[in-house]
Amino acid sequence: MRNLSTAAVMMLAALLPTQAAAQPEPADLLIVRGHVLTLNERREVIRDGVVAIRGERVVAVGGAELAARFAARRTLDARGALVLPGMVNAHTHASMTVFRGLGDDVPDRLRRFIFPLEKHFVDREIVHWGALHGIVEMIEGGVTTFADMYYFEEEVARAARLAGMRGVLGQTIVNFPAPDAPEPYGGIARARRFIADHRGDPLITPAFAPHAPYTVEPDRLREIARLAEELDVPVLMHVAEMTDEIANLRRDHNRTPVQHLESVGLLNRRLVAAHCIFVDDADIELLRASGAGVAHALVANIKSAKGVAPVTKMLAAGVRVGLATDGPMSGNTLDIIGQLGYAAKVHKLDRRDRNVMPAVDVVEMATRGGARALHLEDRLGSLEPGKLADVILVDTDSTAMVPLHDPYAALVYAASPRDVRTTIIHGRIVMEDRRVLTVDAAAVRARMRAITDRINAALAKGLPP
Amino acid sequence: MRNLSTAAVMMLAALLPTQAAAQPEPADLLIVRGHVLTLNERREVIRDGVVAIRGERVVAVGGAELAARFAARRTLDARGALVLPGMVNAHTHASMTVFRGLGDDVPDRLRRFIFPLEKHFVDREIVHWGALHGIVEMIEGGVTTFADMYYFEEEVARAARLAGMRGVLGQTIVNFPAPDAPEPYGGIARARRFIADHRGDPLITPAFAPHAPYTVEPDRLREIARLAEELDVPVLMHVAEMTDEIANLRRDHNRTPVQHLESVGLLNRRLVAAHCIFVDDADIELLRASGAGVAHALVANIKSAKGVAPVTKMLAAGVRVGLATDGPMSGNTLDIIGQLGYAAKVHKLDRRDRNVMPAVDVVEMATRGGARALHLEDRLGSLEPGKLADVILVDTDSTAMVPLHDPYAALVYAASPRDVRTTIIHGRIVMEDRRVLTVDAAAVRARMRAITDRINAALAKGLPP
Repeated sequence: MRNLSTAAVMMLAALLPTQAAAQPEPADLLIVRGHVLTLNERREVIRDGVVAIRGERVVAVGGAELAARFAARRTLDARGALVLPGMVNAHTHASMTVFRGLGDDVPDRLRRFIFPLEKHFVDREIVHWGALHGIVEMIEGGVTTFADMYYFEEEVARAARLAGMRGVLGQTIVNFPAPDAPEPYGGIARARRFIADHRGDPLITPAFAPHAPYTVEPDRLREIARLAEELDVPVLMHVAEMTDEIANLRRDHNRTPVQHLESVGLLNRRLVAAHCIFVDDADIELLRASGAGVAHALVANIKSAKGVAPVTKMLAAGVRVGLATDGPMSGNTLDIIGQLGYAAKVHKLDRRDRNVMPAVDVVEMATRGGARALHLEDRLGSLEPGKLADVILVDTDSTAMVPLHDPYAALVYAASPRDVRTTIIHGRIVMEDRRVLTVDAAAVRARMRAITDRINAALAKGLPP
Repeated sequence: MRNLSTAAVMMLAALLPTQAAAQPEPADLLIVRGHVLTLNERREVIRDGVVAIRGERVVAVGGAELAARFAARRTLDARGALVLPGMVNAHTHASMTVFRGLGDDVPDRLRRFIFPLEKHFVDREIVHWGALHGIVEMIEGGVTTFADMYYFEEEVARAARLAGMRGVLGQTIVNFPAPDAPEPYGGIARARRFIADHRGDPLITPAFAPHAPYTVEPDRLREIARLAEELDVPVLMHVAEMTDEIANLRRDHNRTPVQHLESVGLLNRRLVAAHCIFVDDADIELLRASGAGVAHALVANIKSAKGVAPVTKMLAAGVRVGLATDGPMSGNTLDIIGQLGYAAKVHKLDRRDRNVMPAVDVVEMATRGGARALHLEDRLGSLEPGKLADVILVDTDSTAMVPLHDPYAALVYAASPRDVRTTIIHGRIVMEDRRVLTVDAAAVRARMRAITDRINAALAKGLPP
């Protein structure tokens, strides 16, 4: 425009709206007439809103008038629905759906039930079908990104790609023989291979997943920190979850788990620390300063009677906190909508203050917060131009959602995961009108039942537990 | 048979099975092929079970072979469903659905929001349509009996009868002008009329509902105790819910709320005491010895940051405890399935013991426990011959319910109220395959939205809050 006179520029500018109307921009998907919760920095809400998607990205978000600007290949009518960013499940073990409901309400489950069950049963088939079933549940419940750590993690990745699901997936590393690696720490080599195989995948971010401070020695943690830096990948880990973890680290190293991770070079912007129940103010400051993410698995934490992570303090300090379900043998469900009410209410109880953790903060933690916890906030977590198009439509027509005085309160205090109508991941509709399009969910259920029958038959013969 | 020889009796007995097959017993409804949770004393579970209903009563419960004994007018195929007693919501204010989501997450809601909103808006229309909407939600969520206390309670009763819902309904009595009674304590005369009008109703048990120890003077409480005895009706009341209630009763009478109720003659087998958060061991013993019922509204209690009622102690002592939602402005939803997970998990957290409140105890509290809390255990709460036929079918085919290692764990830790397939009350199918048959639910939602628009328009003009 440098050679044009000011008058000419003004004339052109005056013409632009007409030209825009005459030559609409292309879009692949236009979501119209929805009640849009952008979850952007200003938490903008648009009562009769439009979201325009081109390829895998959001290209525009605005009022009803925006629709005319686009010529879309497909238009979704979102009347009667809330339109918001897809939710992030910041920590789970999706494959464990096969064990869901086994051995609930018993003490010392990890060593008495979970580890033995995994030792005897976990194989490629269980990991794949268990993950696929869990991913179906997440898609149905409005989760569009999950962080997962398990064995045979490549089978979780295969399931995620099949379903069109986004994942930050970590191959587990432990100091004992694992279902997928007969040698202690065989997971390190597996993780390197897994990372090499999935580098650059549009949906999968591969990661290291050292199990916990009490199952991986400090030298190995240092090695993993170096490799993660070298390979530029995240590190997923259970942190400050168990009382004996705290006691033993204090005894052996005179450190808290967070201090321990700092000492081995893991406390940084690659880390996603699940749980963080037992952290003090100094730990919280370390978490904030390091830029580490925290996956808050409240429902699983209280079901196991462990306690309530001090998340109101973490949020006040500016720590990156997302919500998480933990595995379905710990929290039983994998959707995030089911976590929202607990997050709002249990923190009010814990702090004895009904003003803390208001509904809007909880929805933010489930979306934008989860993206921050996974270090993906440049790409995910809000409906804004340039972000990846992970979008959900949540019906407001179910009885519990009527009337709708406040959309955040309705989501947190009244919605069910079954209210999710449509789920879009990376610009692709993976569920529409409650029907998953990418996977035959009934066939997956049938396979799950066959696997369960096999497990139960083995358990009946006296295998553990 | 007195004149027959032993041989003849034996011969007749040998003939009986054949005769039974030839002359089957009549039944109105036969539920077959379900996974039956009887919730009887022995907690019997029948994997492929049958429930036979004649008129308003269950006449037989047993295995698949039972079906042949009956000629039924109607057979329901319950394959893939859990069949269990309908759930009991032991304390709510269903009409407050109109205010659901208004003023969440703010302090002192009762006096700043709820009382002013009620003063300005509550009329017959709101009570009726709000209750009808709430009852639809309960039927959809598998609740077959609710205990309700509100103003214009006859409108709640009318809604319940329209929907075919069972209710223990209490007309509210307070020491200030109420929406339905301009004089303080006008509720007493209204309650007497309400009780007279509904005596003997097959679905409605009318009751007195003195609001709370802090809103009804001791003399009036004594009068209500006398009247309840004379008229043989229950008394519904908020008890030991507020910290200032505890402090003021201590200051003015040197009593706990439970002791206070004993002193005025209300602590007996007619009482259904909602909340009971702040009760000590002596109070628990008084509750047990008196046979009073407790409605445990855990979700509402923690949302308001009040605390956790010591229900594990109450159950151990043998107190009659049922689950309750409280009103939808306090707990937001009205189904009991949504309470189950909280009951299991928050008590584990509160006691720091994952073994307390196992899933089966929670389901029992939701059914048999609720019936005991409402003093209706001779008629409700389990699937047994002679009990009233309040039965629900809960699908086990939703993703979160697969696999089904343990039906109680699935109900408590994974089910959604949206999994309820069919609801039967007093022998009548009121919802089938998720469609409410007795009420036009969409029309009720439309009416609710019109009422909400009116409320919001008034609020926008500066009315409270």
